[in-house]
Amino acid sequence: MLVLSNDEITRLLTMQDTMAALEPMYRDYADSRALLSPRFDNMSPTPHAGAYYAFKHMGGAWPAQGVQALRINSDICTHPVIAGKPRRVKQPMADGRWVGLVLLFSTETGKLLAMFPDGVMQRMRVGAASGLALKHLAREDVSTLALIGTGWQAGSQLMAARAVRNFREVRVYSPRRESREAFVAEYADVRAVDSVEACVAGADVILAATSSMVPVIDPKWLEPGVHVGCIKSQEIDGAVLDRCDRVFVHNRKQAKQYNNVLPGTPNVKEEHEEGWWKDPVRRERYPDLGELLSERAPGRERADEITCFANNVGMGLQFAAAGALALRKARERGVGKELPDDWFTENVHP
Amino acid sequence: MLVLSNDEITRLLTMQDTMAALEPMYRDYADSRALLSPRFDNMSPTPHAGAYYAFKHMGGAWPAQGVQALRINSDICTHPVIAGKPRRVKQPMADGRWVGLVLLFSTETGKLLAMFPDGVMQRMRVGAASGLALKHLAREDVSTLALIGTGWQAGSQLMAARAVRNFREVRVYSPRRESREAFVAEYADVRAVDSVEACVAGADVILAATSSMVPVIDPKWLEPGVHVGCIKSQEIDGAVLDRCDRVFVHNRKQAKQYNNVLPGTPNVKEEHEEGWWKDPVRRERYPDLGELLSERAPGRERADEITCFANNVGMGLQFAAAGALALRKARERGVGKELPDDWFTENVHP
Repeated sequence: MLVLSNDEITRLLTMQDTMAALEPMYRDYADSRALLSPRFDNMSPTPHAGAYYAFKHMGGAWPAQGVQALRINSDICTHPVIAGKPRRVKQPMADGRWVGLVLLFSTETGKLLAMFPDGVMQRMRVGAASGLALKHLAREDVSTLALIGTGWQAGSQLMAARAVRNFREVRVYSPRRESREAFVAEYADVRAVDSVEACVAGADVILAATSSMVPVIDPKWLEPGVHVGCIKSQEIDGAVLDRCDRVFVHNRKQAKQYNNVLPGTPNVKEEHEEGWWKDPVRRERYPDLGELLSERAPGRERADEITCFANNVGMGLQFAAAGALALRKARERGVGKELPDDWFTENVHP
Repeated sequence: MLVLSNDEITRLLTMQDTMAALEPMYRDYADSRALLSPRFDNMSPTPHAGAYYAFKHMGGAWPAQGVQALRINSDICTHPVIAGKPRRVKQPMADGRWVGLVLLFSTETGKLLAMFPDGVMQRMRVGAASGLALKHLAREDVSTLALIGTGWQAGSQLMAARAVRNFREVRVYSPRRESREAFVAEYADVRAVDSVEACVAGADVILAATSSMVPVIDPKWLEPGVHVGCIKSQEIDGAVLDRCDRVFVHNRKQAKQYNNVLPGTPNVKEEHEEGWWKDPVRRERYPDLGELLSERAPGRERADEITCFANNVGMGLQFAAAGALALRKARERGVGKELPDDWFTENVHP
């Protein structure tokens, strides 16, 4: 059983390889050759005042690679009011750190193959999904990318966009100057601008990568030929979608999610907030990434179309695909800490 | 993070202590102070002919002990025909071993506290549930125990019954003589008999602990004052239940289970076989162990009542309760292999 660290996974996974690993998974999923398990959130009390304990898992089996993944998050959550709005904040209570894990099992032997923190892979899979959509939806001749957001996920969006298109200009905006400057210092050939309008003006691709709970894209910005993307449903609204000629979501079925809440748990996640993603008509209308990549639904057909990829929800299967890749590369390169298999198997089954 | 083995858990958990650890959990569960996550079965193809891959998990958070448990089974399953009937058999494909794991998390810090194989604890929790029911349902003055079955679970039923009542005589029956003799060699003061009728005649307590898919208890055997128990729903039928004055199931709600099957998976578990446990009227009628232990539903009230405890389904919360006990004892005694916590935490959360 191989234990990998986030640092090791950073070295093992390039964006290009991650996208190449995920693409056939989406096709297999669309063809009913990969099994997605729904996301399950269990929420119960924690001793910390005003906080709750959130235990989340999602999974997926991808027979073509012989792996079953389970991603687990074990979080102490609070809802502080930040800039006038309640925000869900995961508190790093594990000696100042967070707890998110991926377990990979073999569908051939049943063995636990690997275990690693989820953070780096989480970020790569979000970027890879956006990049795969962009590859099929953005014009071939795009030249300007507008990035709204300068956090960790924005970097992943940038890597993915550059992996599939050549941008002559990348502009980035976020409200705080220090964040913009830090981003520009980290990524080459990126220009920070001090208004969102300056960021998006004339851009061929607009990507939102924020933690905002309210829309950050204005439909007026969307001119013919543009591709727009977001990493969470709340970043856009129905008016943005209605402005687009062609919309794809990440996954249609996975929008179904199970919540399991102990009565009396304080302050639990407002799971049922309203939004376009709860609208059954829209849910029927928009095909998903699997349908795009398996050519069940066509990508861009004309240069003047406005296209959109809305990453409405994560898929546990992404961890199966990216996990199988990380495991293969780790074995090839001798990376990671091997623990004895027999610690994680048994000679009884009652 | 503490890794424990089945051998270590065997030494850490006595039946008496396990019952004492589970009893308050059942009361908290009945009082909505413990959160049960449903069992989830994900079934997909495996390369082995005629087999399928079954990935199962169930969980539970018990705030009083600050633990969230997740029990995971990763099995290659076949359905061979044995003695004319198809039986579900888990194939030990992990170097001749099986894969079942329990993960324990802290609801206070989020940390992964411990990880261990599920087998020994699985057996102990099944016994403990039966023992707790027996304590409240069997007459105080019982003297003869009839045990149907001589497998690993039968031993756990015997330990549990002896933990709560003094039996002058224990008789055991199973069809194969060698199995009976092996059982008698292992457990003190047990008498093997060569017919099930000889086993149950005049017994005050009858416990079934078999892997049978068809009933093994005849309602005619149930005389006034007897207590009867089973470890799986199929061991009894409606006629047995109708003969009883007072019936408790293990859990009413957990009977709801999610199955997630990839189309084309061969030979999957016949989850939806008919039986009393699918009958909504019976499901309403019978209270569960939590209701018994929290005194929401009375136990035995008269010496001549026939009582029954039907363990219709497992509960992930049992692993939270028994797991918290094992972890506490392991720390007290310095048992287990400690791995660095920071292998299982992270400094990022995207």
